[in-house]
Amino acid sequence: VSPPFDTARLDSLLNQAEVDAVLATSAHNVRYLLGGYQFFFFAHFQAIGVSRYLPCVGYQRDRPENTFYIGNPMESSSLALGPLWVGRTDTSSWTTVASAAATAAAFRDLGLEQATIAVERAFLPDDARAVLERELPAARFVEALPLLSELRAIKRPDELALLRSVADEIVAAMREVIESAGSGLTTREIAERVRVAETRRGLVSEYCLAAAGPSPLRTPSDTPWLPGHSLSLDSGASLGGYVGDLARMGCLGEPTPRMVEVLAEVDCVQRAARAAVSRGRTGHDVYAAALAAQGGCSDAARMSFVAHGMGVVSHEVPYLTDERTVPYPAVHRHRPFEPGMVLSIETELVDSEVGFVKLEDTVAVTEDGSEAFGDANRDWIVAAG
Amino acid sequence: VSPPFDTARLDSLLNQAEVDAVLATSAHNVRYLLGGYQFFFFAHFQAIGVSRYLPCVGYQRDRPENTFYIGNPMESSSLALGPLWVGRTDTSSWTTVASAAATAAAFRDLGLEQATIAVERAFLPDDARAVLERELPAARFVEALPLLSELRAIKRPDELALLRSVADEIVAAMREVIESAGSGLTTREIAERVRVAETRRGLVSEYCLAAAGPSPLRTPSDTPWLPGHSLSLDSGASLGGYVGDLARMGCLGEPTPRMVEVLAEVDCVQRAARAAVSRGRTGHDVYAAALAAQGGCSDAARMSFVAHGMGVVSHEVPYLTDERTVPYPAVHRHRPFEPGMVLSIETELVDSEVGFVKLEDTVAVTEDGSEAFGDANRDWIVAAG
Repeated sequence: VSPPFDTARLDSLLNQAEVDAVLATSAHNVRYLLGGYQFFFFAHFQAIGVSRYLPCVGYQRDRPENTFYIGNPMESSSLALGPLWVGRTDTSSWTTVASAAATAAAFRDLGLEQATIAVERAFLPDDARAVLERELPAARFVEALPLLSELRAIKRPDELALLRSVADEIVAAMREVIESAGSGLTTREIAERVRVAETRRGLVSEYCLAAAGPSPLRTPSDTPWLPGHSLSLDSGASLGGYVGDLARMGCLGEPTPRMVEVLAEVDCVQRAARAAVSRGRTGHDVYAAALAAQGGCSDAARMSFVAHGMGVVSHEVPYLTDERTVPYPAVHRHRPFEPGMVLSIETELVDSEVGFVKLEDTVAVTEDGSEAFGDANRDWIVAAG
Repeated sequence: VSPPFDTARLDSLLNQAEVDAVLATSAHNVRYLLGGYQFFFFAHFQAIGVSRYLPCVGYQRDRPENTFYIGNPMESSSLALGPLWVGRTDTSSWTTVASAAATAAAFRDLGLEQATIAVERAFLPDDARAVLERELPAARFVEALPLLSELRAIKRPDELALLRSVADEIVAAMREVIESAGSGLTTREIAERVRVAETRRGLVSEYCLAAAGPSPLRTPSDTPWLPGHSLSLDSGASLGGYVGDLARMGCLGEPTPRMVEVLAEVDCVQRAARAAVSRGRTGHDVYAAALAAQGGCSDAARMSFVAHGMGVVSHEVPYLTDERTVPYPAVHRHRPFEPGMVLSIETELVDSEVGFVKLEDTVAVTEDGSEAFGDANRDWIVAAG
């Protein structure tokens, strides 16, 4: 079986960072390096017994054939059904400490006792790190996050297909729920219906923010959706580990002229931003276009705009967010977009009469422009009042 | 708002262990200490941006009023809807490092710079631990797992109600899926139907193992369920963070005499084990009763038995498992059961003709005996062939 990701790209990243090997311990990076495999038993719940499930993937620079996987005894039969591409699989671990000990043994077997090993410090449990340090006292441990995030920046066709599907299904689920909701359901009930609709469509439903106008509160609550009111749905779900995150608007009965106006303002900013997404352009261009469009809106002061990369994590490379809204470094604001990068683009407007108004779109950079995923139903979705 | 858990019990556990404060960082213990609250946005996916969501609860011994919570800016509106019982809430953290810095600041404000602080090492990220050590250089960090597991050992009536509901709903979902499956569905399709059925019933579906006889493979696969064959379903799901984990058997058409026989053997072991569950008796008694019953079965050599505590983690106090099956220390084998303890009791039998046969039941210790949760449909659930 050939490696499911671009090992030359990883080798190059490791080389530039002067790193000999990388150890993935986050669910998303383990799954990425294994080409989509995740042991279904621990897909949601990790805690068990006196510890937790800690799958590990180790990768040695320039030696993809030496890649190893550490898992749990219960997953042996899953692996027998579809063997992994890696060179070595050890499913003996029931605890974080056992996973770390097996990882250290695998690195030792590869002669990496004195290597520089990149680890995911936010996803490496303290007790596992202690075992690695004890068992590999001459190794040097550095942060793996920039390397693995960069590795995932350009999505392959199979990844784009999953991102397209999850976006399509989230929007279809939101439309289905809006059109069938009827009057008087609370935003909590509506969010629960979105969860069920996404699940029925084969997705893993992650969350649903729901606001019923005029209240701007997006936490699902007892707020009822009433005739003539707006409904803002913003839902995240995943398919094969790939995240969709889109926002759409519903109205119980025909939208008022003011409702039409505010959604048009939001859409105007979205379109301006989306038009700036293409190969060679930058996050700076996207923000500049969006903010210029926003400046031309009569409700500019109550609007806000965000764009960020997305994939297996809901904010990933390219990191574009403004630190005023989400405090991640906007380190890629001036980096040219490349085909295969995927962005989430979001504009919101809080109106005292209409409530919370938002569109969020998924846009992939293509060879000759861009492609939006799940791009249906961006206008008011009208439910029978 | 009064504390949702028994603070005197926690104070006593901390006192015995000579620990001044405890820091919870696992999703299940944070939720437990907050009386069920969990920020819905990060209920499934924790990774975001350049780090991950890391909620923290700090508790000072004998000072429940000093309990603090560290969360994310996005959860402010959720907390405004239903304030927490804790004395201090800080929702400023977007990263593990920021959560740890806010935690260290809160401990410093309580004068705990030189305290012994118990942390969940398997659930404390390495970079967060490094911040705690740097910011609290005179503090001593010890393992919190035994303390927090013991705190949760005796379930309150509200916890028992959730455990009862989740068990009832899992069994109802499995029955619904079995009775409506029809011939030829694969175990992958059946497991997916269980996931949807559990979600529709308001649960968070965690996993579903599914075997269609005569194959003993429990990983959902392309194996079809055919007329005359058995179906073993073993599914975990949660409600409000409380776990249900039950196994039931289906048959496409009436079960054969051999099928009736093997399920009766499994049931015989289950009944013997369950009869030994009552206040003052022990895990040793349960295993002794089960193994004696198993010894009387003609298929004893192909049967296995496990019992374990359960609650917000699928294997928790009392720890009873046999290290030959699940390698956790059976540290509570001789500890008397107390009312409010909840056990999962499981017997399986692998038969070359029938396939994988299993019952798993949830049994709570009560004042005057025991109560089984989700105790319906323990016989063959017959689907129209």
